[in-house]
Amino acid sequence: MNTMPEILALKRDGKELVTEDFQYICKNIDAIPREQLGAFLMACQINGLSPEETSNLTSSMLAAGQSMQIEPGRVDKHSTGGVGDKMSIILAPALRAAGATVPMLAGRGLAHTGGTIDKLEAIPGFNTGLTMEEMKRNPCFISRQTDDIAPADRILYAIRDITATVPQIGLITASIISKKAAEGLEKLVLDVKCGSAAFMQTKDEAVELAKSMVRTGTSLGMQVTAQVTEMDNPIGRMYGNSHEIAESIDCLKGCGPSDTMELVLAQADSLGYDIRSHLKDGSALHEFRQMCLRQGVENSVIDSLVENPWSVLPKADLIVEISSTASGWISQIDALTIGQVLCNLGAGRTGVTTSIDHGIGAELIKGIGEKIENGEPWIRFDINSEMDEELIQQIQDSIDISSTEVHKTSRILQIITSP
Amino acid sequence: MNTMPEILALKRDGKELVTEDFQYICKNIDAIPREQLGAFLMACQINGLSPEETSNLTSSMLAAGQSMQIEPGRVDKHSTGGVGDKMSIILAPALRAAGATVPMLAGRGLAHTGGTIDKLEAIPGFNTGLTMEEMKRNPCFISRQTDDIAPADRILYAIRDITATVPQIGLITASIISKKAAEGLEKLVLDVKCGSAAFMQTKDEAVELAKSMVRTGTSLGMQVTAQVTEMDNPIGRMYGNSHEIAESIDCLKGCGPSDTMELVLAQADSLGYDIRSHLKDGSALHEFRQMCLRQGVENSVIDSLVENPWSVLPKADLIVEISSTASGWISQIDALTIGQVLCNLGAGRTGVTTSIDHGIGAELIKGIGEKIENGEPWIRFDINSEMDEELIQQIQDSIDISSTEVHKTSRILQIITSP
Repeated sequence: MNTMPEILALKRDGKELVTEDFQYICKNIDAIPREQLGAFLMACQINGLSPEETSNLTSSMLAAGQSMQIEPGRVDKHSTGGVGDKMSIILAPALRAAGATVPMLAGRGLAHTGGTIDKLEAIPGFNTGLTMEEMKRNPCFISRQTDDIAPADRILYAIRDITATVPQIGLITASIISKKAAEGLEKLVLDVKCGSAAFMQTKDEAVELAKSMVRTGTSLGMQVTAQVTEMDNPIGRMYGNSHEIAESIDCLKGCGPSDTMELVLAQADSLGYDIRSHLKDGSALHEFRQMCLRQGVENSVIDSLVENPWSVLPKADLIVEISSTASGWISQIDALTIGQVLCNLGAGRTGVTTSIDHGIGAELIKGIGEKIENGEPWIRFDINSEMDEELIQQIQDSIDISSTEVHKTSRILQIITSP
Repeated sequence: MNTMPEILALKRDGKELVTEDFQYICKNIDAIPREQLGAFLMACQINGLSPEETSNLTSSMLAAGQSMQIEPGRVDKHSTGGVGDKMSIILAPALRAAGATVPMLAGRGLAHTGGTIDKLEAIPGFNTGLTMEEMKRNPCFISRQTDDIAPADRILYAIRDITATVPQIGLITASIISKKAAEGLEKLVLDVKCGSAAFMQTKDEAVELAKSMVRTGTSLGMQVTAQVTEMDNPIGRMYGNSHEIAESIDCLKGCGPSDTMELVLAQADSLGYDIRSHLKDGSALHEFRQMCLRQGVENSVIDSLVENPWSVLPKADLIVEISSTASGWISQIDALTIGQVLCNLGAGRTGVTTSIDHGIGAELIKGIGEKIENGEPWIRFDINSEMDEELIQQIQDSIDISSTEVHKTSRILQIITSP
């Protein structure tokens, strides 16, 4: 049994740690001096974690906390985060309509990327803080992680955040997969975003992370599929918290944008559920209503939300439309700029403030592949105060216009499955 | 101006840090979260520190604390630590007798190696905790580091100790040289031990550390010489706290063992002082008396100490002699075993206890190159309780007997000086 300094010396020297080492760290995480945890994470960051180490760290993080019972038919997805990434809100009730159990733990927005929890909190009364007991008897929910699920991850993540040890494949894998494994899943689908607005900028990095997560999830007994998807352009036509709830309801009614639906359907397919008929016959929308009801939303609010989302969702007062400065076909929209602008305007957290304005958002008027004239508006912002010239210029610069016709391509770049 | 996470990201990626980065860390050391300091040290440990980074870290550690005024004639030495390493206690008063000012900050024992401060505390009444003000008006002292000298080192050292980041050349250099530079020295001599009982096991490592310390000390304006010396065999004939004080007094009287005197004389020579006549004419011993007096020892105690050391020094009651199991010439004595045995018997700290027994020690009866018969005792232990068979066996095994004559060689393996 190694002591913490011995574990650190091994990892420092590029040696392989064993299960007992990771178990020791995860079980004693509250008692281990913070300087040792910082040194441990930096040693992992620089010297890397082997597949076996990643698997052992993940299972140790899982074992140190509470878990839900593993059962057939329990499925979930995880996304590494993007701009306009609202698929979870559509997928969860649609999967439920198709017969799955969906115990979905989700997160808040990070930097320019939105968070499912923030989006759901745009719905008046929606409770995103279910207890472990409430989760255990709920067949389909979307809720925040509780303190008793993978508690080691909570501490390690907070330390990684301030010690420049976030971008390590093994540590990212352990953080994501330990939480998903705690849900007792049979199957998991991972949306690994790649591109300028994603955490993983290159396809190579995204594929490496996808492979690591599939391998590790599989080693913990789950059937895992990872879809590496493009995240240079924003997803769908609506961005922001209220805005993405409104678009999710469109999708649940069967009239969502094609790129968003491509991803939702592919995710459900990966999990072995065909949700197409459930989106058509209204049963997916019904399950969304049921989920809202179970998570505290009043029936009258749900009726209004589904009938006319903007009758209950907050929306900022001021409309600013940005126009194209050239004629042609839209070939690129820089999701990073759109995400950053919205975050800075109050739709996300900038670090200075921890509260967000759910009513701030944007709606695409013209998307990739559509023809546009010089001076024609292509995006509308719902905001609280006028934009200055610099910001308008920045948004204008975030779109590329091609003089020749452009065809939209699939967002799915590569699929990696459990062996 | 980089933030701490930015500094960590740079060091993580193998980039070169600049003066401002090290200054930021050293000035804000109390406020920086411990996990960031642990991560910083691990990144330095794994990715290394360049000569310029080492120099910048050292000067930043120095600048963050109090220093004594730099003056010609102020000299000191530092040893990386060994078994029987008592040269400081002889050197300081001898240098004073030769006209130097000696502001010597020393440390306690670490693992199997003895510490000058522990040894001096065997002398009844000797105060090893002088204040900065007392040090400033004292022409020759040996005292503990105070909290206001290189305070960043104290914090960083405590963290290094538990994060497996002790053995890094740049960090060792900064720790040692920042404290020595705070003494306001004109000249510094470094005894860099190498061998099985030393911190640096190989000559290559010792030479690398010596060069780093010489380069860094020189960059801070000191004239520095490093002597790389052998530390496989124990130094002199007496080991333990009281024991080494007794042998130091022998040396100051001009009748010390040749290997100990070789080192003391070479160290003084490096600093530009010939102490040979002062050891002969009693002026070095007089300065030792003066040093004891200034540091709180009563005159009557000093008289007795110098006349008959064992009349005032504590000594354990039980004598155990270990005999040779072969006949021939003694070719090797394993200093590591001797040091570890004494430490475990109470002469040093084992981590369980923080107090030591100054009266526990050993005296060599026969040394390297001397002829010995099977059954003849070669070492005597002054201890508190009987040794078991296993321990006796271990000590017996620590000596090598050659069937052919053996000649003692110089302990000095290489000398490195400021350019």
